[in-house]
Amino acid sequence: MLKLNDNYLKLPGSYLFSTIANKVAEYKAANPDRNVVSLGIGDVTQPLAPAIIDAMHKAVDEMAARETFRGYAPDLGYDFLRKAISEGDYVSRGCDIAADEIFVSDGAKCDSGNIQEIFSDDCRIAVCDPVYPVYVDSNVMAGRTGEYDPEGGLWSNVIYMPCLEENDFVPELPDEKPDLIYLCFPNNPTGSVLTKDQLQVWVDYANSVGAVIIYDAAYEAYISNDDVPHTIYECSGARTCAIELRSFSKNAGFTGVRLGATVVPKDLEVGGVKAHALWARRHGTKYNGAPYIIQRAGEAVYTPECRAQLKEQIDYYMNNAEIIREGLTSAGYDLSGGVDAPYIWLKTPDGIESWAFFDLLLKNANVITTPGSGFGPSGEGFVRLTAFGTHEDTEEAVRRITSL
Amino acid sequence: MLKLNDNYLKLPGSYLFSTIANKVAEYKAANPDRNVVSLGIGDVTQPLAPAIIDAMHKAVDEMAARETFRGYAPDLGYDFLRKAISEGDYVSRGCDIAADEIFVSDGAKCDSGNIQEIFSDDCRIAVCDPVYPVYVDSNVMAGRTGEYDPEGGLWSNVIYMPCLEENDFVPELPDEKPDLIYLCFPNNPTGSVLTKDQLQVWVDYANSVGAVIIYDAAYEAYISNDDVPHTIYECSGARTCAIELRSFSKNAGFTGVRLGATVVPKDLEVGGVKAHALWARRHGTKYNGAPYIIQRAGEAVYTPECRAQLKEQIDYYMNNAEIIREGLTSAGYDLSGGVDAPYIWLKTPDGIESWAFFDLLLKNANVITTPGSGFGPSGEGFVRLTAFGTHEDTEEAVRRITSL
Repeated sequence: MLKLNDNYLKLPGSYLFSTIANKVAEYKAANPDRNVVSLGIGDVTQPLAPAIIDAMHKAVDEMAARETFRGYAPDLGYDFLRKAISEGDYVSRGCDIAADEIFVSDGAKCDSGNIQEIFSDDCRIAVCDPVYPVYVDSNVMAGRTGEYDPEGGLWSNVIYMPCLEENDFVPELPDEKPDLIYLCFPNNPTGSVLTKDQLQVWVDYANSVGAVIIYDAAYEAYISNDDVPHTIYECSGARTCAIELRSFSKNAGFTGVRLGATVVPKDLEVGGVKAHALWARRHGTKYNGAPYIIQRAGEAVYTPECRAQLKEQIDYYMNNAEIIREGLTSAGYDLSGGVDAPYIWLKTPDGIESWAFFDLLLKNANVITTPGSGFGPSGEGFVRLTAFGTHEDTEEAVRRITSL
Repeated sequence: MLKLNDNYLKLPGSYLFSTIANKVAEYKAANPDRNVVSLGIGDVTQPLAPAIIDAMHKAVDEMAARETFRGYAPDLGYDFLRKAISEGDYVSRGCDIAADEIFVSDGAKCDSGNIQEIFSDDCRIAVCDPVYPVYVDSNVMAGRTGEYDPEGGLWSNVIYMPCLEENDFVPELPDEKPDLIYLCFPNNPTGSVLTKDQLQVWVDYANSVGAVIIYDAAYEAYISNDDVPHTIYECSGARTCAIELRSFSKNAGFTGVRLGATVVPKDLEVGGVKAHALWARRHGTKYNGAPYIIQRAGEAVYTPECRAQLKEQIDYYMNNAEIIREGLTSAGYDLSGGVDAPYIWLKTPDGIESWAFFDLLLKNANVITTPGSGFGPSGEGFVRLTAFGTHEDTEEAVRRITSL
């Protein structure tokens, strides 16, 4: 008899950001006169850099003439982009990642949701708590996570690594042995980072227990401190145990443009089989390449002209982070993050619960945030603020929150 | 212990079109002076229509200014595009499909590979033989297909519906009851079609046995006969049993632009749960929306100006189909398709095997085709030719084949 995938039915509620969007839409409909500003979802607000716009116009024109028209792209990405990423993000940092170890995609969210597919159904995942919901939800859909405990907000078959004030929001090695370890640094949602030495401990651990690290480096462009690694391949031994997810969303403002890449080194073998071969097969079977126009936009990101333009964009957002940090700290709030990351992790005052504080800020300050508990039970008592707003909105939001 | 998904390891060889690409690359490297022309992979060759180019330039410019910049798109697609599809492809044909039953994606290949995920692991699939490989391979990866018999080229747990000369390449209702039925009409690879009455039989059958039809309508723009339906929702009762995949690749030349849509009617329930809710959850969790620029390109497709431009494009390709049909028929070849479909299904002469005829045409005529056996054992003894080449290449290819 036909049945639906009942793992889907185990998922509690809806996707976090959809829930927030619905709450905000409801509030706005009931209060059409209010100017609601958002420090919520991590969506960028600055326009694309001029060099990227130029590259896209040029590529659109190529699609208009038979001689330069491009049909199906190579499933794994155009060589021009894979080479630009290899050189710009890896070789230039002394990391040995070849162009053919880079798989171009339509974004890190898709890759972070799909990567679990190439592993067996019974593998055990470890995640930070709080955590970006996609890592867990995609494993729920695949049936790996056991049962959900609505009281505790945890899945029975997931290894959680709490990130708390006590450990500076840096996870400790788990007691139980995981098969897949999801790490995201600079971290979403806490804004915490790992130094290279701290990350090396994880690489050594994964190699020693035979685990694979899924390393989400989406926010590396926001790193300012020298001892914070931009890629896990700065650590020795990472080629045998780590898959890295890269995004153009935050370093180049591509949230609506959609481009990402995943690195699967050829040295990464499980049971004598290269993970690279399986991910290539998945791409070839279930994916059809990122749009030509957008791969050209991605290539432009690595030109010196564009890099200068993007540095200004990052500085703009990190100036917002500073405004939030300084404004709220002066007003007596307790927070972390926002130094090497675009996220600020704000402790709710007087132990108010995350969703209650979210509601309070929405209603009394007309400011949208993201409730920390939406990222996992250890996020309870926090909200996430992002630096991706406009300068004006960020100043206004801080003014309103501090006036409460 | 960490293991890879060993279902992937069951897949024989590589993806059909990658194998062909490798063979052709090898031949070209060894014979750099030869002018190889392709009637092989179904990739378009004509540039994008002017109205689409204009829409994309405009959208690129919007991304350049803060006031008009767009970040994350709605996961399920922009309303402007969902409405254009609903109106242009359904309501205008008298089919009751609402905008919120349409899920915009980056292409029908991805959707046809991903759609199986929302069904249970033990559901039984039925496919035509020959068949577009993605339907089967994506179910292999999910572990639904049993074991592969390298001799017969079939999977033990798949219901095959042979499409042969004897039945005019139209499948018969299966003896065993399937849960999921994949149908693609106009058909890839045979170019056969179903009349509305013939398709109604399938809809009635699916409703009577409680099966779901995954209906791939990627080639509907090539239909010229009035009694051939452009969408399964022209059949009564399809809203309770059919999911439809739509592509912009062939009707608007978007193979390198990447845009598709899947229709999941809200009346389609399995065990009391709406499939619509699960597909929405999948999109929200593992997908992040198609690029804004490309959704605007898709919207442009439905303007009267663009429709006229695209009609010319389709006529151009269908003129190629006629050249192939007439040229090869006159030369004594036996073929079908190419009337309401851009594919011609050519019987190999003297019972030569598909791959041998592929090699022969590549070496002796420098023409690329697709071996019918690559689509399944019932494709043995055929090759697929496509009408998507340039006019000049198509004429040249026919000239060369008929001169052999």
